[in-house]
Amino acid sequence: MKGLLDWWEGRCVSSKSLRFVDYNLRGIGQVMFQDNPLSGALFVAAIAWGSFAAGVPEVLLAGLLAVAVATLTAHWLRVDDAGLRAGLYGYNGVLVGLALATFVAPGMLLWTYVVLGAMVSVVVMRGAMKAGQPWGLAALTAPFVLVTWLLLLGTYGLAGLSGDGLPGGAMIVPYETAAGPDAGLVAFLHGTLLSISQVFLKGSVVAALLVLAGLAVASPAAALFALGGAVIAVFTAHLFGAESALVTGGLLGFSPVLTAIALGTVFHKPGVRVALYAALGTVFTVFAQAAFNVALTPIAIPALTAPFVLVTWLFLLPKESLEPA
Amino acid sequence: MKGLLDWWEGRCVSSKSLRFVDYNLRGIGQVMFQDNPLSGALFVAAIAWGSFAAGVPEVLLAGLLAVAVATLTAHWLRVDDAGLRAGLYGYNGVLVGLALATFVAPGMLLWTYVVLGAMVSVVVMRGAMKAGQPWGLAALTAPFVLVTWLLLLGTYGLAGLSGDGLPGGAMIVPYETAAGPDAGLVAFLHGTLLSISQVFLKGSVVAALLVLAGLAVASPAAALFALGGAVIAVFTAHLFGAESALVTGGLLGFSPVLTAIALGTVFHKPGVRVALYAALGTVFTVFAQAAFNVALTPIAIPALTAPFVLVTWLFLLPKESLEPA
Amino acid sequence: MKGLLDWWEGRCVSSKSLRFVDYNLRGIGQVMFQDNPLSGALFVAAIAWGSFAAGVPEVLLAGLLAVAVATLTAHWLRVDDAGLRAGLYGYNGVLVGLALATFVAPGMLLWTYVVLGAMVSVVVMRGAMKAGQPWGLAALTAPFVLVTWLLLLGTYGLAGLSGDGLPGGAMIVPYETAAGPDAGLVAFLHGTLLSISQVFLKGSVVAALLVLAGLAVASPAAALFALGGAVIAVFTAHLFGAESALVTGGLLGFSPVLTAIALGTVFHKPGVRVALYAALGTVFTVFAQAAFNVALTPIAIPALTAPFVLVTWLFLLPKESLEPA
Repeated sequence: MKGLLDWWEGRCVSSKSLRFVDYNLRGIGQVMFQDNPLSGALFVAAIAWGSFAAGVPEVLLAGLLAVAVATLTAHWLRVDDAGLRAGLYGYNGVLVGLALATFVAPGMLLWTYVVLGAMVSVVVMRGAMKAGQPWGLAALTAPFVLVTWLLLLGTYGLAGLSGDGLPGGAMIVPYETAAGPDAGLVAFLHGTLLSISQVFLKGSVVAALLVLAGLAVASPAAALFALGGAVIAVFTAHLFGAESALVTGGLLGFSPVLTAIALGTVFHKPGVRVALYAALGTVFTVFAQAAFNVALTPIAIPALTAPFVLVTWLFLLPKESLEPA
Repeated sequence: MKGLLDWWEGRCVSSKSLRFVDYNLRGIGQVMFQDNPLSGALFVAAIAWGSFAAGVPEVLLAGLLAVAVATLTAHWLRVDDAGLRAGLYGYNGVLVGLALATFVAPGMLLWTYVVLGAMVSVVVMRGAMKAGQPWGLAALTAPFVLVTWLLLLGTYGLAGLSGDGLPGGAMIVPYETAAGPDAGLVAFLHGTLLSISQVFLKGSVVAALLVLAGLAVASPAAALFALGGAVIAVFTAHLFGAESALVTGGLLGFSPVLTAIALGTVFHKPGVRVALYAALGTVFTVFAQAAFNVALTPIAIPALTAPFVLVTWLFLLPKESLEPA
Repeated sequence: MKGLLDWWEGRCVSSKSLRFVDYNLRGIGQVMFQDNPLSGALFVAAIAWGSFAAGVPEVLLAGLLAVAVATLTAHWLRVDDAGLRAGLYGYNGVLVGLALATFVAPGMLLWTYVVLGAMVSVVVMRGAMKAGQPWGLAALTAPFVLVTWLLLLGTYGLAGLSGDGLPGGAMIVPYETAAGPDAGLVAFLHGTLLSISQVFLKGSVVAALLVLAGLAVASPAAALFALGGAVIAVFTAHLFGAESALVTGGLLGFSPVLTAIALGTVFHKPGVRVALYAALGTVFTVFAQAAFNVALTPIAIPALTAPFVLVTWLFLLPKESLEPA
């Protein structure tokens, strides 16, 4: 793996356009905290598989367009080189592109919207980095969530953008199930894997395996915590009687997966106390995800990764010392 | 009173388990800013009376369980001793326990929920303390509000937790009353006292008197401002035509009571200018309470003490110099 | 112009009551960032014209009462002289007054509400100034938005205050138009000008011209960016199929107008890169305005200038270096 990365780095040194590709791959890798072009490439493969399998190739296209626009915008804004190289200005862009193309019908105005959203995602990312400085807080995917929420809400007021993928406003009613949840082993595995692929808004087992591979090549611990986070999420959601279709579709697990990776491997050194702390955060993210799903029902937008951002910020703010005693 | 406290302190020095009780009593006292175990004991009596009178002893149990879990969690997180001794890591926990047991039906999953909520309340408390540092802002009951809101919202999506006590989503319609409000002296007194007991989610005159006693033993000024805040709240709410049942039930007054204590006695030295400033904040909290009640109608959760937290933060941020000229 | 201002300044030096008028005029000028009594006077003329033309003279009265109360409150709070002289403690007050009288029916309780709102707007302004300090962020009209939102929401729960001008809670449904939008030149001009007058909650061409004159006497660049922002807003809104009545009424343009002035002339020195950056922010504000309109539909309050505040904060936070290369 190291050899492959060295060879690629060598190619990038001598080619401006390969360097540009490198920035963008790292940007895609940073969606799951990996500053690694190979992770990015495997994540692209996951997005591609998921998009073609679902018959929506435009989603892949929107993601790639958005990350490129974001990188160019960052360049125009003369951002710091280190951040640009590490892909920090690209990961929100790719998510904005994927989400807009997932929820809004294709057309000229959608593409304009994707470009605008990608550009603004960089401004908001730079703002979020500054906003978090007094507490040493990372921006996480907050810029993606904020920009996408505003742009999706806007579609309800704009006849030119129709969002067939959007839920539409509804009243909040308690979920009450008569039959027991579909909690067989196959469903459990399905829910676990799709919790991982849904980080990229994809419900696909193959995409999930590609994502796990992308994590493993850069950080085996991250892959492990992703899997662990997904298992915890699916188990907790079933235990408390969440809607089976949501659990099995991975829709209650993608935020907890990100919380598990962030708290367990990115912002703390792995260890027993860290794992317990990350587990508490991961379980709470499941309830936060359920809560956001409910709270956003009248406002008619999806939660995206907001539960992950909120819970991870709350758990990072105290800067707990979690080393062994 | 001093003798009693000295005797208790002496007992605590020689007993680890009494010290643990002491931490928890102070935690309960801190719900109304009193670092005093006797206040805490009287508040427990108020909660107990209110819970048994209403036929919901599990609410008392949940409050006690939650404060104990919160204190243990703080210990596990190796928090600062001074904060732990002063009960700063317990007051959000006890409120989370009381609120969850008030709004969610009893059962194994509720108790799991209470324990989880109490643990997370400590993490969020520590986060909120850090978050407020650049402005010297106290966390107030923000951790309680945030954690409880998320957990209550989550119940709508989880069949295992049914919240009969929860309002359910509804459309916002203006409140228009034909008959004049029920503003006789008895109703007025009732509303005033219940505004005080509702700080602990209890609608009981006896509980209110116990709470006032708990304040008076630690700070007569706090008891006075609590009473004054309640009178202002009930008067303002009646004047502007608020729903009589809400006013008389103390449901528009508990946040103003806390604002009055905080602005009038905790964060400023009492005085004429301070009293005027606190009165302005108290009146505004009544409208903020009405506003939160409305804004949360479609989202189907109670306002809790959010109006108090918001208004008190706004009034503390400027660090006005309110000494006599 | 300079001569006129000098003469006025001379009169103010020798008269306490004229100085008080001066503070208030500057406060009204600061609604559009102009520390200039002549701008304030022309804005008053615009408000007066718009109020009388619409048959609601009480709106003018409420605005004037509110700015005076705000200035007196600031004096009572012993604020810094520089801020008081520059009108920084008045502009939120005047907007609170205008908005309350626009949306709530006249009566004794309305006037009480206006006085209370104006007083609190100063406290919140001082809080917002402190809150923004770590990032050097200006408060903009955030205090106006927050105070007015709370007070308007409160009216739904208070029978004494009826808000016939308020929208009432509603479900979110996508806007879909069959016929093409009314995008003739006259409608386009109308929408452009009303986008400017709606900053003061007025839909009037004459008021818009008075506002433009008020900007021009203090800063020709501000007048230019206001006009440019309005044109961009109306064009963008039409292109994406926004509701014609909203566009032509200026209701999607007043926030973008403020973003254009702020990003283009107040917080950056004008230039090509600055103009492009401001244009991006202005376009995004149009979508943010559409988004807030949708998001607030179930909560039944108007967006006010929240989209301007949010987007301008996001675009100012990074402190981009936008000088020519």
